[in-house]
Amino acid sequence: AKKTGEKYDAIINAAVKVIARHGYHQAQVSKIAREANVADGTIYLYFENKEDILISLFAEKMGQFVTVAEQTINEQTTVEEKLRTLIYMHFYQLAKDPDLAVVTQLELRQSDPALRQKINEILKHYLQLIDKLIQLGVKEGAFSPDIDPLLARYMIFGTLDESVTNWLLKERKYDLLSNVEPILRLLLHGLKSA
Amino acid sequence: AKKTGEKYDAIINAAVKVIARHGYHQAQVSKIAREANVADGTIYLYFENKEDILISLFAEKMGQFVTVAEQTINEQTTVEEKLRTLIYMHFYQLAKDPDLAVVTQLELRQSDPALRQKINEILKHYLQLIDKLIQLGVKEGAFSPDIDPLLARYMIFGTLDESVTNWLLKERKYDLLSNVEPILRLLLHGLKSA
Ligand SMILES: CCCCCCCCCCCCCCCCCC(=O)SCCNC(=O)CCNC(=O)[C@H](O)C(C)(C)COP(=O)(O)OP(=O)(O)OC[C@H]1O[C@@H](n2cnc3c(N)ncnc32)[C@H](O)[C@@H]1OP(=O)(O)O
Ligand SMILES: CCCCCCCCCCCCCCCCCC(=O)SCCNC(=O)CCNC(=O)[C@H](O)C(C)(C)COP(=O)(O)OP(=O)(O)OC[C@H]1O[C@@H](n2cnc3c(N)ncnc32)[C@H](O)[C@@H]1OP(=O)(O)O
Repeated sequence: AKKTGEKYDAIINAAVKVIARHGYHQAQVSKIAREANVADGTIYLYFENKEDILISLFAEKMGQFVTVAEQTINEQTTVEEKLRTLIYMHFYQLAKDPDLAVVTQLELRQSDPALRQKINEILKHYLQLIDKLIQLGVKEGAFSPDIDPLLARYMIFGTLDESVTNWLLKERKYDLLSNVEPILRLLLHGLKSA
Repeated sequence: AKKTGEKYDAIINAAVKVIARHGYHQAQVSKIAREANVADGTIYLYFENKEDILISLFAEKMGQFVTVAEQTINEQTTVEEKLRTLIYMHFYQLAKDPDLAVVTQLELRQSDPALRQKINEILKHYLQLIDKLIQLGVKEGAFSPDIDPLLARYMIFGTLDESVTNWLLKERKYDLLSNVEPILRLLLHGLKSA
């Protein structure tokens, strides 16, 4: 099935809306077709089934995000600036698109092992961006040579992810972007007083 | 419905096993009854439905955990020791009971808003333990007065939670407890080199 074109994009964007509004399990292909303004049969020219829609939308949106984030990070000089950019872009992307935030923070947390593995293979592209940043920080001497890079990845991703989930479940009543600087500080310096 | 007794405990423990093995959505009450060696009808003397079983098992296990964790933390002198104890106990509890880890890391991540709210009201008891530790650290001057206590909570819980999920999805092939010290260091001192 072809994976580009105007209709493909329309279906992907309709799927984000329908999944955010109804939940993945209640997001029938026919609902997505209606939202995208295409016939049910048209969906199957592009996607095998509902699971393929979920995986494809995550791959599509994540691919776009990682490409832009990587470019923007490469334009920064210091590793601190690069980390700030990563935090900012992660929060900005989800703050500007609450439907996408519902999908990433709630609906992609699937427990079915086969589905979860497909989701995590896509997430890996983002985690590799974090890993490169950690490697660079250690290499340049900005980050401690003693840190375990995998655990540093868990701390960075875990902190950002938990921050976004809380903001979402608090009905987005505060500005997520106001958390960028204090979280950067916490990740760089930890809890201890200097 | 009564919420104590030998049969109640047997049903709770059977539910952990069945939910871990089959997933929450495939964990029919009859499967849980069979695993607990009780009649289907017996379950309904204690629980309204499957959702009530999930919520009750989380409340039960979390209540026990928080009670013991709070006592053990109170026995420690410095806030660093208290934080180490918290990390250790969080990891130990789930490392010794992989079925419980599947339930907490995968099956309790429900997207249905009403169910999720009930889950998070229970999680709150644990988060409050983390909050008290942060307050104490700031009050005693061990933690920086500049940290935002809520964001510090997200960092601590998010880092531990992400570490456990990765360990679980890596099929538990390394010792989770070997991560206690390096994670304590990361949380206290952050990424930066001293
Ligand atoms: C719609 C898109 C929107 C656009 C973007 C918006 C902004 C940003 C994005 C927002 C976030 C989106 C989140 C959506 C998430 C859904 C999934 C979640 O729930 S996420 C939240 C929950 N989190 C998750 O679900 C993430 C779960 N993680 C994973 O599934 C995997 O890490 C992986 C598949 C991502 C990579 O896997 P893999 O490539 O295999 O490898 P690793 O590198 O991990 O490991 C390398 C080696 O190191 C070993 N090792 C590791 N740790 C330790 C240790 N501590 N001690 C000792 N050893 C350790 C390990 O065993 C391995 O050895 P071996 O096996 O090769 O021998
Ligand atoms: C089976 C048990 C096993 C035994 C134990 C084993 C070991 C340990 C346990 C393992 C973990 C188990 C995890 C299982 C988890 C399932 C759920 C998840 O997915 S968890 C992973 C995903 N995480 C989650 O699902 C956690 C989601 N969190 C929550 O749902 C809530 O925080 C809450 C319900 C827990 C507490 O809520 P609440 O009591 O209402 O309050 P808050 O204090 O949060 O906030 C206080 C006020 O501050 C405002 N504010 C906050 N932040 C900011 C900010 N940055 N800027 C500005 N303002 C901010 C906020 O709006 C509020 O103001 P207002 O509204 O009063 O005006």
